[in-house]
Amino acid sequence: MSVTKIHHINFIVEDLSAGIDRYRKLLGIDNFVIDDLPGRGVKTARSKVGDSWLVLVQPVDMTGIPGKHLQQHGEGFFLISYSVDDLQQAAANVVAQGSAMTSEIPRQGLENWQVWDIDQNDTLGTQIQFCEEK
Amino acid sequence: MSVTKIHHINFIVEDLSAGIDRYRKLLGIDNFVIDDLPGRGVKTARSKVGDSWLVLVQPVDMTGIPGKHLQQHGEGFFLISYSVDDLQQAAANVVAQGSAMTSEIPRQGLENWQVWDIDQNDTLGTQIQFCEEK
Repeated sequence: MSVTKIHHINFIVEDLSAGIDRYRKLLGIDNFVIDDLPGRGVKTARSKVGDSWLVLVQPVDMTGIPGKHLQQHGEGFFLISYSVDDLQQAAANVVAQGSAMTSEIPRQGLENWQVWDIDQNDTLGTQIQFCEEK
Repeated sequence: MSVTKIHHINFIVEDLSAGIDRYRKLLGIDNFVIDDLPGRGVKTARSKVGDSWLVLVQPVDMTGIPGKHLQQHGEGFFLISYSVDDLQQAAANVVAQGSAMTSEIPRQGLENWQVWDIDQNDTLGTQIQFCEEK
């Protein structure tokens, strides 16, 4: 079992429009696709950079995990999601190594992304996630 | 001017060996290349994941920027470096947009990586860097 690439990286922003504007002006990143992800209490803007997605995440519900992250840490890096061929196998390996996933089953991300987070206590300060498109 | 891909992402760790071990066990990432970067006061371990480099960074000099980051924020995300075709052009665009680079000229990163950081005041809480291999 090995991750195959960086599928996406999420950055928390206070304001999606301001974030899009900043990334366009400083990095030339454009063609953002806007989406809501009500289950997480966020609005998102994603753009493909090379072979990975850059995702800007604006919390709209401050009681959700991204909203709490914004309140505690401010804007910035939120999580990195690695592509795997088989989510179940990737999660089973984590458990076999003595670590844990944050939930019993994967959850629905944007588009056809099925995502599953590793317990952050086991990942050296970084929220790491697996992603499988299906 | 537009960035072309995620060239590398740096994560600060307290102990390089422990970091390598964790990434191998949980993510199956292996084949780390170990390197010192004395100018930054760090030891590093890098491995290619898809089309991008994952870089683990252990500060050995706590007065350097990565060392201070570890002391202030603990382990976790440090910076994201985007590939550009022309460093000078990318930096000139940042300045033209009213933002700033952190130095007058690029600095030498690992291998043949020439890197140049955007002032973090202008990047919504994320240390963003340009990278050109030459």
